[in-house]
Amino acid sequence: MGQGGRMPHPSYDKIVERCREIALYQSTASLLRWDQETFLPRRGQAYRAEQCAFFGGKVHRLFVAEEVGGWIADCEDAGLEPGGVEAANLRDWRWSYDRSTKLPAEFVEEAERARALAMPAWAEARAKSEFGLFRPHLEKVVEINRRKAELLGYGEEPYDALLESYERGATTAGVAELFGRLKPQLVEIGQAAARRSEAVPGDLLHGDYPEGAQRAFNREVAEAIGFDFEGGRIDTTAHPFCSGLAPGDTRLTTRYESGDFSSSFYGVLHEAGHGLYEQGLPEEHYGTPAGSSVSLGIHESQSRLWENHVGRQAAFWEHWFPRAAHHFDALRDRSADDLAAAAARSQPSFIRVEADEATYDLHVILRFEIERALIGGELEVADLPAYWNTKFREFFGLEVKRDAEGCLQDIHWSMGALGYFPTYTLGNLGAAQLFATACCERPEIPAELASGQYATLLGWLREKVHRHGSQMLPQDLIEAATGAPLSADAHLEHLRGRYL
Amino acid sequence: MGQGGRMPHPSYDKIVERCREIALYQSTASLLRWDQETFLPRRGQAYRAEQCAFFGGKVHRLFVAEEVGGWIADCEDAGLEPGGVEAANLRDWRWSYDRSTKLPAEFVEEAERARALAMPAWAEARAKSEFGLFRPHLEKVVEINRRKAELLGYGEEPYDALLESYERGATTAGVAELFGRLKPQLVEIGQAAARRSEAVPGDLLHGDYPEGAQRAFNREVAEAIGFDFEGGRIDTTAHPFCSGLAPGDTRLTTRYESGDFSSSFYGVLHEAGHGLYEQGLPEEHYGTPAGSSVSLGIHESQSRLWENHVGRQAAFWEHWFPRAAHHFDALRDRSADDLAAAAARSQPSFIRVEADEATYDLHVILRFEIERALIGGELEVADLPAYWNTKFREFFGLEVKRDAEGCLQDIHWSMGALGYFPTYTLGNLGAAQLFATACCERPEIPAELASGQYATLLGWLREKVHRHGSQMLPQDLIEAATGAPLSADAHLEHLRGRYL
Repeated sequence: MGQGGRMPHPSYDKIVERCREIALYQSTASLLRWDQETFLPRRGQAYRAEQCAFFGGKVHRLFVAEEVGGWIADCEDAGLEPGGVEAANLRDWRWSYDRSTKLPAEFVEEAERARALAMPAWAEARAKSEFGLFRPHLEKVVEINRRKAELLGYGEEPYDALLESYERGATTAGVAELFGRLKPQLVEIGQAAARRSEAVPGDLLHGDYPEGAQRAFNREVAEAIGFDFEGGRIDTTAHPFCSGLAPGDTRLTTRYESGDFSSSFYGVLHEAGHGLYEQGLPEEHYGTPAGSSVSLGIHESQSRLWENHVGRQAAFWEHWFPRAAHHFDALRDRSADDLAAAAARSQPSFIRVEADEATYDLHVILRFEIERALIGGELEVADLPAYWNTKFREFFGLEVKRDAEGCLQDIHWSMGALGYFPTYTLGNLGAAQLFATACCERPEIPAELASGQYATLLGWLREKVHRHGSQMLPQDLIEAATGAPLSADAHLEHLRGRYL
Repeated sequence: MGQGGRMPHPSYDKIVERCREIALYQSTASLLRWDQETFLPRRGQAYRAEQCAFFGGKVHRLFVAEEVGGWIADCEDAGLEPGGVEAANLRDWRWSYDRSTKLPAEFVEEAERARALAMPAWAEARAKSEFGLFRPHLEKVVEINRRKAELLGYGEEPYDALLESYERGATTAGVAELFGRLKPQLVEIGQAAARRSEAVPGDLLHGDYPEGAQRAFNREVAEAIGFDFEGGRIDTTAHPFCSGLAPGDTRLTTRYESGDFSSSFYGVLHEAGHGLYEQGLPEEHYGTPAGSSVSLGIHESQSRLWENHVGRQAAFWEHWFPRAAHHFDALRDRSADDLAAAAARSQPSFIRVEADEATYDLHVILRFEIERALIGGELEVADLPAYWNTKFREFFGLEVKRDAEGCLQDIHWSMGALGYFPTYTLGNLGAAQLFATACCERPEIPAELASGQYATLLGWLREKVHRHGSQMLPQDLIEAATGAPLSADAHLEHLRGRYL
C-alpha cells in the first residue's frame, strides 16, 4: 500500500497482506455474530458457538504469529516516515501485537465459545426475568475476564487491563476520578430536571404506532442524516446495535414498542450515528488500523451526537414533526413542541438505553462500580441481583422489581464485555465537545439542522473524526478535533442548557 | 468416531477431524451465501465475492492437501470393515479426493468469485428483464464450466463431468436417453391435461392474500408435516431455496404473490421437503459423507414428494381447506374441491418453478438441451435469448416476450451451476417411486395424509432415505428403498392418474 504508491518497506506490505486475510475472517465472524442476534434458530446456537470459537482462534493465531512480530520489528528498524499513515499503522500494530501475544489462542477460543453460549442464555433469562438461567454463563464470563486481566497485566488494578481493550489510554483511576467529579453534578442536574419535567405528562406521546410506520419514519430520518442504505440496513433485535460488517455493509438494529415510536426512533438515530462513522472510515485502508474505528468512546461520541445533540433539540422536531405526523396517526393531536418536550423530559428510570440524557450517565457510573467490584473480586456473581438492586436504590431511589429491568437488562456482559461501560460516558463527553466545536467552527450548522440539512455537520465529522480511523489515539483525536483534551465541561454545559 | 466407539484406523480419525474443520468453513460459507441472497446490501456485494472466493479456496485446499490423500490410502490399505459407515465414508472421500485434486485452488477461487458476482447481476437483470446486464457474467460462468469439465475429464462429452458434480453416477447419454423416452409421453399427458383443465378457470383462486396471512398458513403446514422451526426458519428471496447451513440450522426461503397464495405455499412445501431431509440427516456424522445429503436428485425427490404427492392431492385440501379459509378471506366463497382443482390444473406456462406437474419436466428437458449445447460449444451465450425463445415455442407453443420469463427466469446459471437441471426430473422420478413404495409398505399412509397426519410417511423417509446420508450412491439408495432401480414408471403412472 502506502500513500501515493510509495512502498514503505516490504515487511510493511506483508503485514498489510496478513491484515487483509485477517479481515476476511473477521468480517465473516461479524456476520456469524450479527446472524446470531438476528436470525439464528435456537437449535443452531451450539454449533454457532463452535464456529465463533474457531474463527476467533484463527484470527488470533494469524496475528500473533512469530513472522508478524518479525515484520513489525523490520518496519520499526527501517524507521517509517513519521506522521504518515504507515507510521500510525505501525504504532497500532506494535501495541496490539504486544498485547495479543499475551493471550494464548486457546484462551481466545474459550472466551469466544463462552460468549456465543452466554448470549442466547441471556436473551432467554431476560425474557423470563430469571437470573438463574444466566448466572452460570455470567460466572464463566467474569472468570474469563479476571483471567484475561491477569494474562494482559495491568498497572494498578485488573479492571485497567479490560478497560484498555475498549478505550486505549484510559485507566480505571482516571475514569473513577472523572466519574467521582461528575456524579454530584449529575445528581443535581437530574433532580432539577425531574422537577422541571413534572409538567410534562409521561404518556404525552403514548398511542398506537404500527411497526411498519415506525420503520418507514426511522428510515426516512436515517437517510436524511446521511446513512447510506445501499451499503447498509436495519433489522430487529432484543438489544439494538450497529455492526460494520465489511466494506459496503453496515447494519443497524433496533426494537419496536407499539405504544411509543420514540424508543425505536432514538434507537435508530443512535445506531445510525455509529453507522455513519463506519461508513465514513477510509475504505482504502480497510483491514488496517487506519481503516478501523479507533475506540468505543469515539464510536459512542458519534452515536450520542446524532441521537442527543441533533435529535433531541427542539429545532429537530420543528422540522420533522410534519413527517412524523404523516407516518403516525397517533400524533394527530400533538405538536412539534410536544415532541421536543417529551425528548427533553427527565425522570429516573430503570433501563439505561432508554434513559434520558440527565440520568443516563448515572446508569453508566453504577455499572462501572459494579463491574469494578466483580473484576476486583469484592462482588461475586451470585450476589449480583441483590447488590444491583441496593445500588440502584441509592443512585435512583427506585426499587427494582424484576431482574429483567435490573441486572439482566443489558447485553454486554453476555458478550463477554466487561470494561466496556465507561466508554458510554466518555462518548457523551466527546459528543458534546465535538458538537460544540463543530457549531463554533461552522456557525451555519444550527440553522441548517433546524431546516433538516445535515451535510455540513456530517462533513465536519468525516473530516475531523471518521477519515482518521485509528491513526491517532482517542484522546489525541479529540484534542486535534476540538483543540482541548476531553473534559466534562461541554457535556455538563449541554445538560444544564437543556434541563435547567 | 466409528460406530460403538470402535476406532477403525488412526488415519480415519484424522480425515474426520479434517472434515470437521472443513465443515466449520463450509457452514460459514453457506451463511455468506444465504445472507447474500437474503439481506446483503448492494454495496457489500463486491467484498462478499472476495469472502466467498477466499473460503471456497480454503475448503478446497484443506481437502486436497497431500496428507489427506495419504490418510485415505492408509485406510484403504488397512481395509475397513465393509458395509459399515466408515467404509462408506472412505469410498466417498476417495471419489471426492480424486476429483477435487484435479481442480487447482485458484480455479475454485475464481469460480466462487464469478458466482458471487454473477448472482446480484442476475437478480438485477431479471428485475429489469435486461439480458445484457447478465450476459458477461454468464459468459464467464459458461467459460469456467467448460474449463471445469476439461480439468475433471469426462467419458463421452464435457457435460458428463458437470452432471456428475450434482448426481454421482449419472451420465449425459443416460439422461438424454431417459429424457428422449419421457418427452413424447409428457407431451401427450400435457396435451390431455390441458384439455381437461379447460373447465378450471385460471383465476379460480385469485384474490387478495396478505403476506402476513400467507406466512402464517405456510408455517402452520410446514410445522404440521414435521419441519422443526426451533432448528430452522423461512425468509424471503427472489428465488426460493433451502440451505442446510449447519446442525440445528436449516433455512427455507420463498417469495410472495399478493394475488395468489399458492405460489408461496407450494414453494414452502417444496423447500420444507428439502428441509426435512436436511433435518433428518444423522447429526453425529456431521461433516462426513454419512452425515451429508447424497445428491441433488435425491434431495429433489424429497421436496417434490411433499409438494406434489402430498400437497397436490385432493385429500390434502379436504383436510387443510378450513385452515386456509381461516387465514384467507379470499377463499370465503371457495371450497376444498376448488383448491384441489387448481392444484391439478395444467397449462403450458413460462416459469419452471411455478409449472404444474404435467409440464414441469418439459422445462427441465428444455434446459438440459440448452445447457448441453452451451457446454458443448454449439451455442454461445450471445445467442441464448433467441435460442431459448425458439426452443420454448417448440416445446410449449408459447412466445416468450420478456427474457425475465425466458432465459433469465432461473437463478442456477448465476450460481455457476450447469449440469444441475437434470436432477430436477430425476427427483420427480424418485419422488413418485418412493411415495408409491411407502404407500405400499405402509398402507395406512393415504388415510393418515387425508387426516393431516404425516408422521408415518416422514418416519418411512427418515428410515429409508434421510438417515443414510451419502452412505449409498443415489441409484443404490433408490433401489434399496424401493426394491427397483430408478425408472420413469411410477412418475408417469402418477401423472396419468392425476391428469387423465
